[in-house]
Parts: sequence; structure tokens; C-alpha cells
Amino acid sequence: MSELRSWIAEANDPATDFPLENLPFGVFRRHGKPHIGMAIGDSILDLHACLDLGYLDQLSRPIRDACRQPTLNALMTLGRTAAHAVREAAAILLSEHSKVRDERLLVPQATAEMLLPARIGDYTDFYASIYHATNVGRLFRPDNPLLPNYKYVPIGYHGRASSLLVSEAEVRRPHGQTKAPDAAAPTFGPSRLLDYELEMGFFVGRGNARGEAIPISEAEDHLFGLCLVNDWSARDMQAWEYQPLGPFLAKNFATTLSPWIVTLDALEPFRIPALARSEGDPVPLPYLNDPRDQAQGGFDIQLEVSILTGQMRAAQEAPAVVSRGNLKYLYWTLAQMLTHHASNGCPLEPGDLMASGTVSGPEAGSFGCLLEITQRGAHPLTLPNGEQRKFLQDGDEVIFRGWCEKPGHRRIGFGECRGRVLPG
Amino acid sequence: MSELRSWIAEANDPATDFPLENLPFGVFRRHGKPHIGMAIGDSILDLHACLDLGYLDQLSRPIRDACRQPTLNALMTLGRTAAHAVREAAAILLSEHSKVRDERLLVPQATAEMLLPARIGDYTDFYASIYHATNVGRLFRPDNPLLPNYKYVPIGYHGRASSLLVSEAEVRRPHGQTKAPDAAAPTFGPSRLLDYELEMGFFVGRGNARGEAIPISEAEDHLFGLCLVNDWSARDMQAWEYQPLGPFLAKNFATTLSPWIVTLDALEPFRIPALARSEGDPVPLPYLNDPRDQAQGGFDIQLEVSILTGQMRAAQEAPAVVSRGNLKYLYWTLAQMLTHHASNGCPLEPGDLMASGTVSGPEAGSFGCLLEITQRGAHPLTLPNGEQRKFLQDGDEVIFRGWCEKPGHRRIGFGECRGRVLPG
Repeated sequence: MSELRSWIAEANDPATDFPLENLPFGVFRRHGKPHIGMAIGDSILDLHACLDLGYLDQLSRPIRDACRQPTLNALMTLGRTAAHAVREAAAILLSEHSKVRDERLLVPQATAEMLLPARIGDYTDFYASIYHATNVGRLFRPDNPLLPNYKYVPIGYHGRASSLLVSEAEVRRPHGQTKAPDAAAPTFGPSRLLDYELEMGFFVGRGNARGEAIPISEAEDHLFGLCLVNDWSARDMQAWEYQPLGPFLAKNFATTLSPWIVTLDALEPFRIPALARSEGDPVPLPYLNDPRDQAQGGFDIQLEVSILTGQMRAAQEAPAVVSRGNLKYLYWTLAQMLTHHASNGCPLEPGDLMASGTVSGPEAGSFGCLLEITQRGAHPLTLPNGEQRKFLQDGDEVIFRGWCEKPGHRRIGFGECRGRVLPG
Repeated sequence: MSELRSWIAEANDPATDFPLENLPFGVFRRHGKPHIGMAIGDSILDLHACLDLGYLDQLSRPIRDACRQPTLNALMTLGRTAAHAVREAAAILLSEHSKVRDERLLVPQATAEMLLPARIGDYTDFYASIYHATNVGRLFRPDNPLLPNYKYVPIGYHGRASSLLVSEAEVRRPHGQTKAPDAAAPTFGPSRLLDYELEMGFFVGRGNARGEAIPISEAEDHLFGLCLVNDWSARDMQAWEYQPLGPFLAKNFATTLSPWIVTLDALEPFRIPALARSEGDPVPLPYLNDPRDQAQGGFDIQLEVSILTGQMRAAQEAPAVVSRGNLKYLYWTLAQMLTHHASNGCPLEPGDLMASGTVSGPEAGSFGCLLEITQRGAHPLTLPNGEQRKFLQDGDEVIFRGWCEKPGHRRIGFGECRGRVLPG
């Protein structure tokens, strides 16, 4: 497969996350207003400017109107073919063969203020990594780590939409109730067991009507694209509050998203079969079982977590990689999660966000949160500069990266999802 | 205390839910567009029409602008004093002393299409009735019905905003996974244990900035008003899915709200002390403990559940009252729930909805859901026409009512919250 080349030199760098083959969508501020843009090399293609200058006249009126909105919701509503058409038009505009080489269309990513890409009505977090569920379950129930429903139900719960943040927003350590195992009563104060959770988010494109399920064979038509998600978690608050209705204040103080939504079209070369079931595992129930989804519903997306402590920052050291994972370790496919969510008639709306839950792989080194890496603090992590971490300390910055690589294909990346912890 | 009298005769009926002293806010459709209105007797005062005809010129420009919006969010953002000013202006306009007796301002409630009163960004459901928590806990853990955190933490979880409905919307029986205790594996199909949950909802008015808590002494400044909520629940789906992250598809297919938001101002005469703690119960942690809230943070609101079955409807029988409760049975006040929610810095936004969780009292006859009334189906309910119910059947209509009564005060009511079950 031949690579596409752009007149923007950085887009042709083999190391870029954002070649012409990617063209993810995001929203940034320009002239004081939110504009929809697409990442290309180190730049952003400003779709608002493209429209103003007449460079996207070949797109239909509804698509052009959608590209002028302050969020991606309208474009999401138009379905995957609309996003496909915008990507195609942008690819032509940015190709090395294009006669348009208009710098007014471009904004440097380095100085752009990124915004949440969509008005997110509802946010749902799943629990789709069986390795994570097993590791966490083992900490609480050594004999019986995985609950009986896990291999039948894509377990999920509702998160908080109002505390979703875009990468680089600072995160204040939350206060809350915690109770030491030997204490008679809880106390209220700053969380001492603050953690990150490495997740992949996926945005709903076209929605469904209330009361109407989404067949799994059509699920991906309702998926707009993917981003990185850090589901910050206060483990001490979580342990005390989560029975019997699930996590609440331990999670809803902040959830950070990477700003660029990578489309399924861009990820197409990196599809893989769904995770192979272990012997004895049940076949998915019919509403979750689609041969095409089983054959190619997984994605080979490499994930990486780094930490930059305050001490490392002061010494101008580079962030330290603390784990490497891969989205292929999910027990449930994105299509299965989405179909399950709508199976009771729950209306999904354009711009709704779902996330995978913490992505952990089978081996140490591939665990997606400190709770697992340090075994709830029992085995602290030692960073290259000698610092140790059981959980996050004030000043720590957590950086997620994600990308796809494969011989014969351009690297497709997600950029970064980062956030720094402020004192509580 | 002397009663206020209106030139609208029905507002002076002692049995009305909507005297001049109430004036709750809602949104209805007129001339094809959402208008903000206030219930008065059997009518709606159309604030849009009042503004058009110059009857509210004494209100400030921001308040008048907010009253022209298609939802109450803008008015909620302006805080309780703004809503107070609108209620005062409307009371003058509707008083028997008013020279304005303009029928163009009124729409009959009977024919109006009510809409959701606000754009609800996030919906949170609490679990604040200790009797409900104990009754339900006993079904699952006979020896240890109440978990250790209950008397310290106002337990809550995030619900789904996209499936919130206004009264009278039909509710389709959801499909989902369920597993019989003796079955080897779950099956997928229509829920067989569909239930209602009698709850009180409360809307956030003014919000808080991310990272900033709301002191309990200021919590009620962030409360716009109350409505009735039916948190429809599929008990068989809930039992199978809820471990370890809480209820999800068992709840998010539908949640029904009564259309009128009754303000705290209107409820002022019906304040009572917070529920008395039992001997040995802990004192609330300081962030949840406010003397004024303890002294008057409860509300004496009577609640009633009726069921109208298909058979009763065919025979033109009246709905049968199946339980009577009261909001005074909440273990946590509204202020405690709201303050707890924001205590970790979670941003609450104008129009966000919280609900109390099922309101059950101490005695049989005051239980707020069929799960408790029938002891998970073990003791079916017998209706006046001889029909029996373990859980809801197709065609059943569930009707909630709520009101306050007290000698020397006008009755303040919530109207109805109703919904009929359609086959799955």
C-alpha cells in the first residue's frame, strides 16, 4: 500500500501520529470561538477557515453546516458517511498534489487551545478488560476474582458528564470520606490513594430511538471514533463508598480525554479478531454474537502510560514510561458494548461517550492503573530517578499515548491525554 | 395565615394542587414551541404570553430573557432570588385584586403537552431512605441488611439523562439478560420483574465551579425545586448485572418525572426537622452537619402510589392506591445529598437532576416499590378488583401523587407522575 504524502512536511514524518491517513476530528479555539479542526502533522486544519475560503464547496450543505458548529455533535448525527466525506475532502486539500497551499487554513497544534470535541450528554464507563477485572477482583476476593456475570454481561455503569475534561486540564486531588480498615468511623479529607485508569473512549455517532435496540451487525454504524481516556480514581474513597450502587465520588471529580477523535475508517488496517475466549468460556448470547464482529471487532492499538513527577520536572527529566498495554486485551468488542447498552431500548445520542474501562494486559508491565501495578500499594513502583510511588502524588503528571503500527501502513496515533495533579 | 385568592376560580379550590401559594414551574408546547409556564388551578400561566403582552415588565432584563427560553436552565442559573421574583410577579398578576384578567395568558392543563422542564445534563439517583435500604438489603443479606457505610455516606450513583421522560410517556418493557438462580446460564428477553420506584427529584439551580465544594449552609441556594420521579426498574436484570459496578440497564430504559417543579419557597411552611437518628447512630461528619439543616432540612410531603391495570381501565374503574408514604422518612436531607455530591469538587450544573432513591416508610403500606411490598414476589399484592400483582404487567399504569397539607395553610401539590407499561 502506497503512503499518501502531504504538502505539510511534518505529516510525512514516519513518527507523526497524524499523517494524511489519520485526519482525526477535534475542536479548538480560534479568534475566541470553537472551530472544528483535523490534526495533520504538527498542525490543525481549520474546517471553519476551509469553509470560509470556499475550499469545501463540494461537500453537501448539511455537512458544511455541521462543520461550522462549535461541537462535533451535528456531524456525528449525520453518521459515518458524512465524517468519511469530510476526511476525503480534507485529504485532497492536504495532498502533495493539491494546488491549494494556503497557510490560512492551518493553526499550530503547539499553541492551540483544545476543547472537548462534543457536547457529551451521557458518559458510560465499561469494565471490558478481563485482566483488569480479574486483577482488581483478586485484591478483594482472592478465591473468586471474577464474578459469575462477567463473561456474559459487558459490565458498565454511568459516569458523570459534567466533569469530563480535555487533555492538559489540571486535576485537583479530591476530598472525600475514607475509612481505614481498623478505624471505627470514616474521616473526611483529601484522598491519599489517587490513581489513574488507562482507558479507550468511543463516541456515539448516529443515535437510536428510545425503545429501539441496535443490532450488533449495525453497531459500528453508530460509532464515530475513539480517543484516550484517563478515568482518575480515588481508591480510598471508592473502597468505602462503592457498595451497593457502584463508584460515585471516587470517579466523578475528573475524567480526562485526549482531544482528537480517531475515526474507525483510519483504524481499519489495524482491525484484528476479538479476543480469543478461553476454553470453557461461554459463547456470547445471540444479541452480542456476530461473526464479522468476532472476526474483526478488535483493534490492535498500543497504549503507553508515563509519569512525570514534580521532581523529574524540576530536574528537566523526561517522563518515565510505567506501563505498556494494548486495546486487544478487551474481552468485549466496542460493538458488543454499544449493542448491549442499547439492548434495553436506552437511547444513545450523538456525542455520547463510552469508555472501555481500565485496559490491562495479562502480564505485569501491561497493567493500566497503579492499583494493579503496585498491588494496592504493597509493591511500590520505582521510577528511574529513584522516586517511589504507591499512588499519585501532588505535582505528578500522567501522560497516556496510543498508536497503531504495522508494516506497510502509516502509523496512526491518538496524540496525548495528560493531566497534572494539584494539591487537594 | 390568610389564604391568597385568585381570579382563576379553580386556584381557590381547597383541593387543588396549584393555588396561588404554589406556582410551580414547567415547560409546555404552545404554537409548536416550548414555553415556560406556571401551574395555577387547572390552568397554565404562559410566561411567554405574559412577556409578549407586557405584563412582566417589572422583572429585570436577564430574568425576562430567561423566561423566554425553551427550558428552565437559564432561570435556574440566575439562582433562587430570580425564581422568587417571577413567582411574586405571577402572584400579583393572578391575584383577585389584579386588574389584568386576560384569558390569553392561560392554557388549560388538560390539553397541554408538557415537556421536560430543563435540559438535564446529569442525573444522579441517591438511596436516602433507610427503610428502603434496609428492606432491600434484608432480601439479599438477611443477617446484615444495612451496609456499614450507609449511616455515614449519602449513597448515590449516576443515572442516565437521555432516558428521562415527562409524565404520561409510555414505557416499553425492556429486554435484557436475566438468570434464574438454578439456571446454568442467563437468557435474553423481556424483563419479567418490572417495578416502579417512588422517588422525589430535586433540580440544581445555580451550579458550582469544578473543584469547589458547596458548604452545607449554602446547599439550598443551589436547589431550584422538587418533582416526583418514577425510577422504573427491571429487578431480574438488576440482580444479574449489578455486581460490582451498580445498576445499569435495569434502570436506564426510562425514568419518568412529574412536569411541575415546586420551589422550596412554596414548600417553606412544610419544613420539618431532619429524620431523628436512632440511638447509637453516628453524628453526620462535619461537612454534612449543619444545625439549621438538622432543624428544618426535612419536608413533610405526602406521597401516594396508585395502579390502574388494563382490566381496571376496561371496566372504567378508578386506579387503586397501593401505598402511601412521606418524604420525611429520608435519612439524608436534600442539602446533605447535594453537599455530598459536590464535596469532591464535582461540578453541579443548572438543570442537573438528583433524586432521593425509593422513599419507603417504616410500615408495610408505606413501601415505595413492589419489590418491597410483595417481598420480591413472595406475597403478591391483591388489588380491589381481585387481580394480583407480584410485579407490573403490560398495560399497568403507575400514578404517583405528592402534596403537603397542614392546618392554616393551603395545600401545595405536585400534580401527577404517570406512565403506562407497553409490551416488550
